[in-house]
Amino acid sequence: MKKLINSVDNIVDEMLDGMTAAFPQYVKRLEGFNVLVRAKGPSDKVALVSGGGSGHEPSHGGFVGRGMLDGAVAGEVFTSPTPDQIYEAVKAVNGGKGVLLIIKNYTGDVMNFEMAEDMASDDGITVSHVIVADDVAVENSTWTTGRRGIAGTVFVHKIAGAAAEAGLTLSEVKRVAEKVISNVRSMGMAVNACTVPAAGKPGFELEDDEIEIGIGIHGEPGTHREKISDVNNITDKLIDKILAEGIYSSGDEIALMINGMGGTPLMELFIANKHAHEVLDGKGIKIAKTYVGNYMTSLDMEGFSVTLLKLDDELKKFLNAPADTPAFVQF
Amino acid sequence: MKKLINSVDNIVDEMLDGMTAAFPQYVKRLEGFNVLVRAKGPSDKVALVSGGGSGHEPSHGGFVGRGMLDGAVAGEVFTSPTPDQIYEAVKAVNGGKGVLLIIKNYTGDVMNFEMAEDMASDDGITVSHVIVADDVAVENSTWTTGRRGIAGTVFVHKIAGAAAEAGLTLSEVKRVAEKVISNVRSMGMAVNACTVPAAGKPGFELEDDEIEIGIGIHGEPGTHREKISDVNNITDKLIDKILAEGIYSSGDEIALMINGMGGTPLMELFIANKHAHEVLDGKGIKIAKTYVGNYMTSLDMEGFSVTLLKLDDELKKFLNAPADTPAFVQF
Repeated sequence: MKKLINSVDNIVDEMLDGMTAAFPQYVKRLEGFNVLVRAKGPSDKVALVSGGGSGHEPSHGGFVGRGMLDGAVAGEVFTSPTPDQIYEAVKAVNGGKGVLLIIKNYTGDVMNFEMAEDMASDDGITVSHVIVADDVAVENSTWTTGRRGIAGTVFVHKIAGAAAEAGLTLSEVKRVAEKVISNVRSMGMAVNACTVPAAGKPGFELEDDEIEIGIGIHGEPGTHREKISDVNNITDKLIDKILAEGIYSSGDEIALMINGMGGTPLMELFIANKHAHEVLDGKGIKIAKTYVGNYMTSLDMEGFSVTLLKLDDELKKFLNAPADTPAFVQF
Repeated sequence: MKKLINSVDNIVDEMLDGMTAAFPQYVKRLEGFNVLVRAKGPSDKVALVSGGGSGHEPSHGGFVGRGMLDGAVAGEVFTSPTPDQIYEAVKAVNGGKGVLLIIKNYTGDVMNFEMAEDMASDDGITVSHVIVADDVAVENSTWTTGRRGIAGTVFVHKIAGAAAEAGLTLSEVKRVAEKVISNVRSMGMAVNACTVPAAGKPGFELEDDEIEIGIGIHGEPGTHREKISDVNNITDKLIDKILAEGIYSSGDEIALMINGMGGTPLMELFIANKHAHEVLDGKGIKIAKTYVGNYMTSLDMEGFSVTLLKLDDELKKFLNAPADTPAFVQF
């Protein structure tokens, strides 16, 4: 294993300090915790907290800032953050209008975020949560009952964040977040596995001509392995599985995300995007906005995921609203 | 080789179409050419054109937009664009106030951009150019007489772009660009080599415990190979070589860029950034702004470069000015 780290034991700690050093205009770290919150402190609006295991950067700390998250909790690599860390985040961002937790659907994440919700509720803080389960690849997986939450989560951050910034109440922000969750689906693939630093070797081995379809964001198994083919064919498979959900029809307007897994050259993501546009255009699905880049990664994994979000006027308005965070700036 | 492509022969063509499909609000492609220009066409200001071989995404097309470039010319992978392509870009972006070419110092790039400059001058277009040579690693290299132009080029795009947007004349924009070039230095390293698609195998082989220091952005050799050590030690070596230039002193204000080479997890870049801040803080060098991410990549190469830009009031003003491009948004 060749990693640009100092010690496997302090990766998350050093990463968070490195993010804070890079972006003091956006984020500060809660002293003694693996939590990033907005540099300017809580404000008079519903606050959003997300997080999960580390290794998905820029998720989630990169999305803390105006128009998106108020706090992000970082667990160890691919490990759920503990309830006390989440609880501290909730207390720190609460501005009196309530706190919404945005949870990716992994058993540990759901359990720990819900425990933190109970702890904060006992303190009199109004807390609610939503669970993102956008991955159509598998119904249950290594660490999940039900579908996994992957790159579609970033759309929840963006749109619920804009709704909160617009002054909506907690129940309204939650309603908007749940609409995104209803309308968003993703599926990914890997060319090469990622290496968790503490493990020191790739989570699985693929042959020189083999790829994994339906992979999650922790190197957990996908639907199947197959021989590598051209990226148009691979993109077709991901989109076909998403379209089989029956959510997206001719005439619909969507947002599209081509998300890199961390080790994938941007060049290749753009080539996949070209074909995704052709396929969706051919089906009469109108792409209102496209995002191409590393949003929800899996350490050094090479591969990509496709995410489709069906838009209505409300979601479109909040998607297009300004956001100013380390990893997502839009005006 | 496992790449997410369709054919090695049409990578650049498909990538450019994929970028245009993703970001029609920012860029359009000149029909029949590997050139991206601003979607809104030329405006009444000095126009900036850059480019070079492909494989460095988001450079250079990702920086076309308000406050940065007006046009970007994409050569084949790691191959200089031809003079006729550059000439077409110059003609397309010219708004009557002159065109500045921002060239990275590679022999082929310099020759072809200068030929295009001559062709456009013959048409009566006022064209000038600057050459970026920020890489302190080696004085001459495989494809260079003199130092190579690497990630520091992005600061030239940003600052000269803001100067042009502010209405400065061509000679003034050129003066500002040259001030950036005088004040910017970079150095990089690689953990793993990149694979040029047409070659089908890595450009060089590193042992399992070996890294290359002083690498360029095409997998060309660096200063030396050594055993991998912790990232703090590696970062020290890059910064020491940059500081040996004698440009950056206690009390100076700088911008810092920790640039990923394409295959490097953001997590690792943040860890390097933490130490870079500690080292520079310790020397009394004030970091006014930090950029961490993939700005000037080398396909799937794993590694990073450090760039320091010494600021004065003028450079700081233009660095902090708004920019709105696919890969760099700042307000």
